[in-house]
Order: sequence, then C-alpha cells, then structure tokens
Amino acid sequence: MAEASYVISVDLGGTNLRVGLVRENGVVESRERFPSESRSEGAVILERVAQAVKAAAAKVEALNGTIAGVALGFPGIVDPGKGVVYQSPHFPDWKDLEILPYFKNELPWPVILDNDANFVALGEGWMGAGRGLKNFVMMTLGTGVGGGIVIDGRVWHGDGGFAGEVGHICIETEGPQCACGSRGCLEMYVSATGILRLVEASDHPEGRDALLEKFGRPLARLTVEDLYKAAMDGDIFSNVIFKKMGYYLGIGIASLTNAFGIENFILGGGVSQAWDFFIEPAKKELSERTYRETARRVRVHRAQLDDDAGLVGGASHYFKKN
Amino acid sequence: MAEASYVISVDLGGTNLRVGLVRENGVVESRERFPSESRSEGAVILERVAQAVKAAAAKVEALNGTIAGVALGFPGIVDPGKGVVYQSPHFPDWKDLEILPYFKNELPWPVILDNDANFVALGEGWMGAGRGLKNFVMMTLGTGVGGGIVIDGRVWHGDGGFAGEVGHICIETEGPQCACGSRGCLEMYVSATGILRLVEASDHPEGRDALLEKFGRPLARLTVEDLYKAAMDGDIFSNVIFKKMGYYLGIGIASLTNAFGIENFILGGGVSQAWDFFIEPAKKELSERTYRETARRVRVHRAQLDDDAGLVGGASHYFKKN
Repeated sequence: MAEASYVISVDLGGTNLRVGLVRENGVVESRERFPSESRSEGAVILERVAQAVKAAAAKVEALNGTIAGVALGFPGIVDPGKGVVYQSPHFPDWKDLEILPYFKNELPWPVILDNDANFVALGEGWMGAGRGLKNFVMMTLGTGVGGGIVIDGRVWHGDGGFAGEVGHICIETEGPQCACGSRGCLEMYVSATGILRLVEASDHPEGRDALLEKFGRPLARLTVEDLYKAAMDGDIFSNVIFKKMGYYLGIGIASLTNAFGIENFILGGGVSQAWDFFIEPAKKELSERTYRETARRVRVHRAQLDDDAGLVGGASHYFKKN
Repeated sequence: MAEASYVISVDLGGTNLRVGLVRENGVVESRERFPSESRSEGAVILERVAQAVKAAAAKVEALNGTIAGVALGFPGIVDPGKGVVYQSPHFPDWKDLEILPYFKNELPWPVILDNDANFVALGEGWMGAGRGLKNFVMMTLGTGVGGGIVIDGRVWHGDGGFAGEVGHICIETEGPQCACGSRGCLEMYVSATGILRLVEASDHPEGRDALLEKFGRPLARLTVEDLYKAAMDGDIFSNVIFKKMGYYLGIGIASLTNAFGIENFILGGGVSQAWDFFIEPAKKELSERTYRETARRVRVHRAQLDDDAGLVGGASHYFKKN
C-alpha cells in the first residue's frame, strides 16, 4: 500500500489553536485543540504552535505516512509573501511578527502562511459551498467578521496581502467605535460582538430583560447561542435582533457586490447557525440595494465545512488540483 | 510615410456625446462633442452615435489613415461580453439595450463596448496617473461617481460585467435615497449631486444664503464650480462643505481598501478640481479608518487626463502593449 500523504494544518484563533491532519482527498483525518492563550507573547505562542505541529508530525510517522507540508492560518493583518503578521485583533501584543522565518528554521517541511479567513475561503472553495464557483466572497461571522475573496479559484490578496477585511467596510459613518480604528464597521452589526451590541443598544429593554431572566445571567455573559435558542423558542425580541442583523448584513453584501462585482457570497462561522432568522431580511436589503440585473444574479450560500474549513483550505494549497 | 492608425473612441455621457480620434501613441488627435439628448429613445441615440462614428471615419479617410477599431464607452450597467446595457442612470428609458449587435451590423470595423468609467480607468492606466500601477481603483467624481477597478493592468469586470460601482457602497444605512435603489450611497456625499445635497442639508443656512446671494441664483441652480470659486475666494461655508465631502470620501476609500486590498486610488471628474479643499480631510479619515500597515501603504492620486481619459482608455484596447 502506498504511503498516505498528509498536510499538517494549523488554525490559530483567539480562543483555540487547532491542528489537523488533512488527507489528499480533502478529508480531515484527525484534529487536536489547544487553548491559544492569546495574552502570551508572540514568541511563546509561536513555540506552542511549533510543538503542536511536531506532535502532529509524530502522529503521521506512527501512521507510516508522509508530510506534504505545513499550512499556518493566522488571524490578523498577514502578508503571506513576506510571512509576517503585522497585527492581530486577538493577539494584542503582536507587532510585525516574522512567522515564516521562524517556522522555516524550526521545521523540515515546506511551510505556508495565510490569514485564517483566507484558508476558510479556500476550504469552502475546494470541498464546501464554493465548489465550482470561480469567484466568491467568504464571510466568517464569528467573534469578529473574517473575510476571504476568491478570484479565479485563488485567494485575492491585494497589493499588501491584506485584502478581504470585508467586516471593515463602514456602513454608519459615526457608528460605534471598532477595534480597527474606524467607526460603524459592518463587523459592529453582524459579528457575535456586534449582535450583542445590538441587544445592548436595543430600545426594547423589556424584551432584553425578559431574555436575561430566561437565561439567568447578566448582559455581559449573554451569548449569540442564547439568543439563537431563544429565537428557536419563539422569543420575539431575539427574532427582532436577528432581523436587524440581517438588515445590516444585506446592506454590507450589497455594497461589496456593487463595488466588486462578485456575485456569490458564502456565510460561515458560529453566527451563521441563526441563518433562518437573518437570511430573509438580508436578502431583502441585498435585492433592494443593488441594480436590477445584479439583484437577479447575486447568491448567498451557507458554508458547509464548519470548523474544518480553515484546516481543509490550508491543505488545498498542496493537494488541490486546478 | 506609413499610414497612421486610429481608434474611433466614443464617450457617451448624460450631457455630451464625445467622439475622438486616438493615435497609436495614446494622443487624442481630434475630438468632437454633440449633445447626448438623454431623453431620446435608445434606438435614436444609437443611430446618432453611429452617425458620429461614420463622420469620424470620413475624417480618418481624409487624413489617409486606417481605422484599427471602434471603442464605445457607455454609462450604466454594461455587460461588455454580451454587448448589452441593462440600465443607465442618465438614460432612463434604456432597458436591456443590445449595443454591440447593432454596431457590428452598422460598422465595418471591430467594435468593443465597456462602461465609460472603466475606459477612464484604462486611460489613466495607460497615459495618466495610473502608469506603472498594476492594481488601482479609478473614481470619477462627476454628476455621479463612476468607478473602474484595474487588476494586473486590466479592467476587473466581476461575474456579470458590472464591477466598479464604487459610488454605490452604503456609508449611511438610512441616508438619502439614491437612484440605484439603495440609501446613503457614497455617491450621495461625494459626487456633484451629493455635494449640492450637503449644501441643501447644511445646518448653517446663513452661510448658504450668503453664497446664493454672491452668485445671485437659487439653490437649484448652484453648481460645484460656484462652490469651488467661493472656496478659492476664502468663503468658509464652501470650505466646510468640501471638508465634509472629503470626510465621506476618505471613509469610502478606507472601506474599499479594507475590503479589496487595492492600495492606489485615482480621483478624476469635475469635482476633483476642488482637490485642495477635500484631499486633506479625506486622507485623515482614510488613515484613521484603516489598519496601521494599510494606512502606511495606501495612496490617493489625482487624475491627469481630464475629459480625454475615456477616449484614450477605449483606444488602449487596440493600441496598448502590455
């Protein structure tokens, strides 16, 4: 039997560091999860990632497999060519961290680096909702909004490597302050953080209070998961919040398709579980805020790979046949 | 002496139909201007364009030249591949107008069609402010906002052909109604129409009244040219309006560079003459509303070709060596 080939794929988030072994057919054979300890210094985190990769490599050896390469999906403002992470919302202490030089020195296999959201886009493009689509925009609605733009089957990195920050288009010039420095970014309305802000800013305190009572916790500990469960139970307040979020999401997608002419959007991330509650208001705005012919053509898809998307996307660099 | 080769380049706007003869070196040798009579039926306008092209062809013949081809820059939602204009803000009666079939039947030369703003982008890329830039976004600040996205030296058309409507990103979700169907589009704040709306909506009626008195005309007949002259004369109200316009412009450019990672923007169109009054506030917002590394890299350039850009860009299809 021929030796199986694997990519060791790393997905570093603000909460978890995930490491997976991905097969040539795009299947994730095993995954491990570690806390990402985002308050640690950059050097400490890089060492942890390297340890986790080496542990995964030992597993490949035990399986009698070979390692095609390593893919590192890191959050933040990443230049994949230079292998540098300039800054990262989840790792406040990072500044101009030279990732690739470190790993190339530390590991004997080929290593690539990209923004985590770009790998998610590639994963969906290879094995998920983006199969067969030449061009699409991937939006990962999590704590923040991750974005990846795929053109002709490849990630569009733009001039500096930072393209795809679709959560940071401004939809209210004097809206709430965003961590990126701007105000009123799309992310402030459609991410988990943004949705909880909508709850906080709601002018229906009775609805909010009833909800907090239902879950027996203060506003600061409410989650979008709670809100989703409440909506499933028929709670009108939660339903209205998701409608509002859908309204903003539709406006954001309309802006992106108007400007960039890409007509397929894939929505993933934890928030997308509330799909049934936000998608109709989103589509309504999208249709009303685009030209007739665009409105007729544009499509919004639900992501298919959940948490595996980034791992699969990292591996696609080595395994996907064009 | 070898025969000179010409492209007959057409730039159809809401006010003027312009036809130029462009030489292989990118120089516009002659231009003619006709009223575009935007209230006429589509068929009537196409006939006028064909007549104007034939008149230009007769001129080429008189010059003993040859015709390399015809380039038609039309406003609106254009599919260059199919040769169809679906709708056009300046020509309200147009619907799904089949442009290329008509002209291919009417004219013996090669004919290409694109959105007028895309030709402007190509023109600046070939002979103007975009020389040497691989990727850039062209914004034409006129009655509306025209946009053209150049990637790797070529117009990025997107999936349906309509990419580049950068004036129709939403920056105020419940802002003023835009002709495109949306509300609060960038165009409503930075085009000539948008700037005059800022004048109308200003909460300094004394400043506005003084301005109207200075020019001796009602608000409905005030122009951005007036406002520019007043600002040049030190009028504070006009100055504040351009500052406000710059604020919105910077926010729009920040959104575009965040999402698409393109780091060069070229601003043209009649409104750009007020450059000195809006560019600093625009750059300030652009810098504050992008990540540090993007802010360091992004550049805003002033267009160089004025009204000729579209004519030159149309010709670039036939003449520009890559």
